[in-house]
Amino acid sequence: MTKELGAEFVGTFMLVASVCGAALFSAPNVGFIAVALSIGAAVLAMAYAVGPISGGHFNPAVTCGLVAAGRFEAGKALPYIIAQVVGGVAAAVIFYIILQGAPASGKWNTFLAISNTYGGSGFPLLSVALIEVVMTALFLVVITGVTSSKGAPGFAPLAIGLTLVTIHLVAIPVSNASVNPARSTATALFGGAEAMGSLWLFWVAPIVGGIIGGLIGKAFYER
Amino acid sequence: MTKELGAEFVGTFMLVASVCGAALFSAPNVGFIAVALSIGAAVLAMAYAVGPISGGHFNPAVTCGLVAAGRFEAGKALPYIIAQVVGGVAAAVIFYIILQGAPASGKWNTFLAISNTYGGSGFPLLSVALIEVVMTALFLVVITGVTSSKGAPGFAPLAIGLTLVTIHLVAIPVSNASVNPARSTATALFGGAEAMGSLWLFWVAPIVGGIIGGLIGKAFYER
Amino acid sequence: MTKELGAEFVGTFMLVASVCGAALFSAPNVGFIAVALSIGAAVLAMAYAVGPISGGHFNPAVTCGLVAAGRFEAGKALPYIIAQVVGGVAAAVIFYIILQGAPASGKWNTFLAISNTYGGSGFPLLSVALIEVVMTALFLVVITGVTSSKGAPGFAPLAIGLTLVTIHLVAIPVSNASVNPARSTATALFGGAEAMGSLWLFWVAPIVGGIIGGLIGKAFYER
Amino acid sequence: MTKELGAEFVGTFMLVASVCGAALFSAPNVGFIAVALSIGAAVLAMAYAVGPISGGHFNPAVTCGLVAAGRFEAGKALPYIIAQVVGGVAAAVIFYIILQGAPASGKWNTFLAISNTYGGSGFPLLSVALIEVVMTALFLVVITGVTSSKGAPGFAPLAIGLTLVTIHLVAIPVSNASVNPARSTATALFGGAEAMGSLWLFWVAPIVGGIIGGLIGKAFYER
Repeated sequence: MTKELGAEFVGTFMLVASVCGAALFSAPNVGFIAVALSIGAAVLAMAYAVGPISGGHFNPAVTCGLVAAGRFEAGKALPYIIAQVVGGVAAAVIFYIILQGAPASGKWNTFLAISNTYGGSGFPLLSVALIEVVMTALFLVVITGVTSSKGAPGFAPLAIGLTLVTIHLVAIPVSNASVNPARSTATALFGGAEAMGSLWLFWVAPIVGGIIGGLIGKAFYER
Repeated sequence: MTKELGAEFVGTFMLVASVCGAALFSAPNVGFIAVALSIGAAVLAMAYAVGPISGGHFNPAVTCGLVAAGRFEAGKALPYIIAQVVGGVAAAVIFYIILQGAPASGKWNTFLAISNTYGGSGFPLLSVALIEVVMTALFLVVITGVTSSKGAPGFAPLAIGLTLVTIHLVAIPVSNASVNPARSTATALFGGAEAMGSLWLFWVAPIVGGIIGGLIGKAFYER
Repeated sequence: MTKELGAEFVGTFMLVASVCGAALFSAPNVGFIAVALSIGAAVLAMAYAVGPISGGHFNPAVTCGLVAAGRFEAGKALPYIIAQVVGGVAAAVIFYIILQGAPASGKWNTFLAISNTYGGSGFPLLSVALIEVVMTALFLVVITGVTSSKGAPGFAPLAIGLTLVTIHLVAIPVSNASVNPARSTATALFGGAEAMGSLWLFWVAPIVGGIIGGLIGKAFYER
Repeated sequence: MTKELGAEFVGTFMLVASVCGAALFSAPNVGFIAVALSIGAAVLAMAYAVGPISGGHFNPAVTCGLVAAGRFEAGKALPYIIAQVVGGVAAAVIFYIILQGAPASGKWNTFLAISNTYGGSGFPLLSVALIEVVMTALFLVVITGVTSSKGAPGFAPLAIGLTLVTIHLVAIPVSNASVNPARSTATALFGGAEAMGSLWLFWVAPIVGGIIGGLIGKAFYER
């Protein structure tokens, strides 16, 4: 199981790196389409690269959704989730260090600005929770569908990566787009009290949405 | 047939969600390229995910075009179209609720602004009808081609999703890009009188275009 | 051969429609990345859809390059080129009509602005000729490679469409990116004297580049 | 081996052309997302086109990483790297010539602005070295994964090209995104003393990262 956890670590590392780098450095200069494309391409690539080893979850909500769908052993969920969070946090550490060198003359975001939050001057809890539940549920419907026995062989990572492009283009202005508690945890650790105070929601909502989506996917594809 | 209708519901739900989210929240901030990428990726993903169940129409004009091409049973068209409209409306309801939480300090669109309309301060009926008929016809030529027996196995959803990227980059400034009566109906319901008054055209033009494209596709691929 | 010519007509129609629509209506509002994505997605889609019928050239420079590479019968080149030009011109006619309805309050391009030109207030003949020859040569290296017997089955249209994304992101500011005499002819007909006066170069340079690229491709893949 | 070196030459030529064209001409007008999409699409296309001949490295750090992973003969590395650098420089020469014709009325970058540098008014050595090592390591994890015997057949170039999209969206604001010493050398030759003075780092960091990534990939996929 070492290789599987290593694959989840490195995949989630790249996922969080793709978000941190694009959201900290590129989004203030060229808009947040950069973040949507960056994470979509990163997850697509890692799902092709290490998906054959671990299944390519890179996301606790995906792991929980696949357990709900009967596609993944419940007993392996906790170690997977730990590897995902550790991989994500490791990437955030790297980008925290890189950010320290950012020249004063440029436009950069803070870790708070790229964290997932609710309330305050942004969208309220209900809007944020709703979009996170719905988007994660749709994500799991896609994942369970494309990895089913009826899915076109080889195309699953393409569909999964592009789903994240859609999800981010839809949800960044509302919730900064989590659908992934490991991603939210990694940035919240450097985002200060406001980010940490919102973090619980970005565990609850994506996991609830993931389980709903997994069950829908199960209904579509069982037997 | 329950699973087929469920697949059309969920696929059209994601299609309309991808339009509503990107057009309401992202387009005012980063431009409408976000909408083109969002819907293209969404339809690509859902066509891979639930296409094996229902064929992945997610659009009454596609259903009608495939009937015209002899690729889909006419008797199933009405239930498909109802499932599509209901799925699209359900997504619009969700985004209507999310929009209620939008903070006054941000830049958002209204449902009217993201609806398909003609006349008024925009393009006139002729321009709008022409672009909708032509774009939907091309869409059906692509669909009938890539799903024919000569099409490269597995690549149909890729080509179909990317066709929607082109269609939206071409038609958003003219008609807001419908090519899909279910999408137009879902946003018009929350768009007020002007949107509802334009809605008939976005049933007629896409379906006429879809039938034309289906017949062209039939001519290309029947032996 | 009717179906082959019909496929070249409809494919080039969509190619020119993707350029006209995105360049006339979207580029002034969201930047010319829209044009690059629009044509790349359009050619990808049509190459999957009608490529199995005609080979999916949609471009006289591609037809000439494939003849040079020994991949296409010289005797069929002229009818193919005629079908391409007619298809492209038909699309330009449609968008000329749509443009007549453009409201004064919006930002639109003219047909001159979206035509391929050299000199005047833009790049001079040498720069324009060089970029057109080099880009079309690379395009044919890609096409001959991905359609060779060693190419991964099914992926040729993906690679070809994305090559056009690169070509347009590289060449739009220099030459408006032709690499395709049919596309240049279609827009020049509505672009006035300046566009018509430049048109010869956008037949010569892409065809020269296409033949060079076809010969390089032949050297790579023969025997 | 002539064809292999020719393939590396032409592939790296297109890679550097995609960077030079998009970064010199398009980025000042539409943002550097153009560069990320341009290089990603170019490498994807050339990896499909000439990858079957040479393996499609187009990058000394990839060649070194694959040697470290036990996937490429060390004895062939030097000729490969020479072909890559020569191909990249040839492309930079072409774009240097094209740039000479740029009209004064437009917005263009200089070769210095598109070169990879550290220090000065930008990010310091540590940030730049860190992002280059980490991004190149992830790149090689992807490459070794998708080209392993477990990788989905045919999808490797797709994943590799899209990884470059992510890498550029993450690293352009920090280091201008090298991950490729041939690309850095090609632009530095026309970038003046500051670019040449930074060049050593863009040989060391990508190659170190490439070797690390190659070794990680080897650990994942050796039995």
